[in-house]
Amino acid sequence: MPAPRKIALDAMGGDHGPKVIIPGAAISLERHPTLEFILCGDEQEISQQLKDHPALKEKSTILHTEKQISMTDKPSQAMRRGKGSSMWLAIDAVRQGEADVVVSAGNTGALMALAILILRPISEIDRPAMAALWPTIKAECIVLDVGANIHSDARQLADFALLGGAMARALFHIERPTVGLLNIGVEEIKGVEQVKQAHAWLKDTEGLPLDYRGFVEGDQIGQGVVDVVVVEGFAGNIALKTAEGTAKQISTYLKDAMLRTWTSRIGAFLAQGGFRILKQKMDPRRVNGGTFLGVNGIAIKSHGGTDKLGFASAVDLGYEMAQSGLLERLDKDLGEFHHKISQIAAQ
Amino acid sequence: MPAPRKIALDAMGGDHGPKVIIPGAAISLERHPTLEFILCGDEQEISQQLKDHPALKEKSTILHTEKQISMTDKPSQAMRRGKGSSMWLAIDAVRQGEADVVVSAGNTGALMALAILILRPISEIDRPAMAALWPTIKAECIVLDVGANIHSDARQLADFALLGGAMARALFHIERPTVGLLNIGVEEIKGVEQVKQAHAWLKDTEGLPLDYRGFVEGDQIGQGVVDVVVVEGFAGNIALKTAEGTAKQISTYLKDAMLRTWTSRIGAFLAQGGFRILKQKMDPRRVNGGTFLGVNGIAIKSHGGTDKLGFASAVDLGYEMAQSGLLERLDKDLGEFHHKISQIAAQ
Repeated sequence: MPAPRKIALDAMGGDHGPKVIIPGAAISLERHPTLEFILCGDEQEISQQLKDHPALKEKSTILHTEKQISMTDKPSQAMRRGKGSSMWLAIDAVRQGEADVVVSAGNTGALMALAILILRPISEIDRPAMAALWPTIKAECIVLDVGANIHSDARQLADFALLGGAMARALFHIERPTVGLLNIGVEEIKGVEQVKQAHAWLKDTEGLPLDYRGFVEGDQIGQGVVDVVVVEGFAGNIALKTAEGTAKQISTYLKDAMLRTWTSRIGAFLAQGGFRILKQKMDPRRVNGGTFLGVNGIAIKSHGGTDKLGFASAVDLGYEMAQSGLLERLDKDLGEFHHKISQIAAQ
Repeated sequence: MPAPRKIALDAMGGDHGPKVIIPGAAISLERHPTLEFILCGDEQEISQQLKDHPALKEKSTILHTEKQISMTDKPSQAMRRGKGSSMWLAIDAVRQGEADVVVSAGNTGALMALAILILRPISEIDRPAMAALWPTIKAECIVLDVGANIHSDARQLADFALLGGAMARALFHIERPTVGLLNIGVEEIKGVEQVKQAHAWLKDTEGLPLDYRGFVEGDQIGQGVVDVVVVEGFAGNIALKTAEGTAKQISTYLKDAMLRTWTSRIGAFLAQGGFRILKQKMDPRRVNGGTFLGVNGIAIKSHGGTDKLGFASAVDLGYEMAQSGLLERLDKDLGEFHHKISQIAAQ
């Protein structure tokens, strides 16, 4: 039986606060009965929601605060004025070792800023990254960075490969995950020197805890050619949003096309089992949750507007990550990698 | 009746050369009977193909050369050794005023390098850009840059807005096209200063020949919220490829889902009219052709692996662009814009 895992939740985060967070946590608890929770936020509102979820109530401690960070607060405001807020308390529970992981549907910028401030980057990392789970025709892959940084340098990109590799090992249970660097196909173009340098380091370093496969292009992500795709955060965020937008666009096309004629309406009715499978495959709630990697602790970001099923997925992700012992190994792996890079540079 | 328009074709370009280029041109000629062509490449191979297309033969001149640029040549190789090749001759026909536009399915990097070398950037532009047509739920929009440059500065991004605006005016026949700047949602992140500066210029400059609508995010492109989306080339190329990959991925899901059960198979059969419409909507051949903007002439890049229908779309695009008188106006509009920006800076 797996050891009990404690997850700290920012119960006030997201567009709907405890109304979504508590039922979401309850769903995840059904799937992982050893879970325990620290619920940070307004005690009255939380208790109100817990009435409908006695099993969750049983496994939860409430950390009361009336303070919360709004979805529109800037990261700098969160850092100056966020102390004691529900998000702060949830992150701090991880710092104190009370919880293994923190999950919040709150303000992304604030979560990243506070996670860095409270948990601190692990010693070998100067820029933590946000990683997303990306559905592929095979299963899922991990894409990072999807917006924590802009224009990363070669060393940061190479570090993301190791961070993503560690996450893939934790989630997909593969000892040496395959990793690709996202690049564009045009030859000899100026400005991607950092991508080329990261490529050279990952290619030439022996004994890495991953299987580096070289460059991949945007259309290969969804084909599942690698377990981990590394990219700087501006392009990564745009790629993620563009894929979401394209999926939505095609759903619209599909609906319109099926309503055109009576035969296609009847056909769509008969084929509804197939459409249901398609809908499940494309359901963004299945892979809800960005993972903030590279700090001393694991912070999961759920979409702010998600429902209880989506939030449950984010808690599930937190559970998987907490199970993995990812952090213990990461610092050592990164240290060895940086040592080898410096040896290559010295040659 | 529209004036006759002459298009120079790199008949040897692409994965299949004249076997696709000539039949593709013939299809476009049926749609635009006033078109005339300059066919650059191996006379024997071209004549062989023209046998099946007497109407095209009638409207074509052949510029013979045995030299051609391969799909694997680097841009620097193309610049050093490309003189007299089929691509070079086609571009040079535009420089000489013999043709209004050049269309090539050849090597992208070589086409951009030679277009800059032979046609020269228009006086107010220091970085030409590659623009793509992007299908939206409303119709189409233009996205640029999709890979001609990396990490553009503020002035270049602002210029792309005017280049894209001119193209939208030509293709969509809208006097003041709406324009958005692609950005990521995270607040206060460092590294997007150039995007913010371009935003300020576009917002504060009065009398621009476009309707600037501010920032857009990746998921809004396919919703058709603006006519023109401006982004630096690395992220733009990745976004374009990611959207293509996502569309392919969803087709795979859809096929698999429809084959699952007998009822869904029957349903899919009855709904085949609907699926056909969907397929047409998603057909990348409909919007085949990147447009290289900002040089003294119009250069259209077709996908290298396209078929005759796809190549015909690229020629159609060249026809529309040639009709528009886009270049005459662009230099004046850019000059006025730069003058106004310098006035803002001086305030």
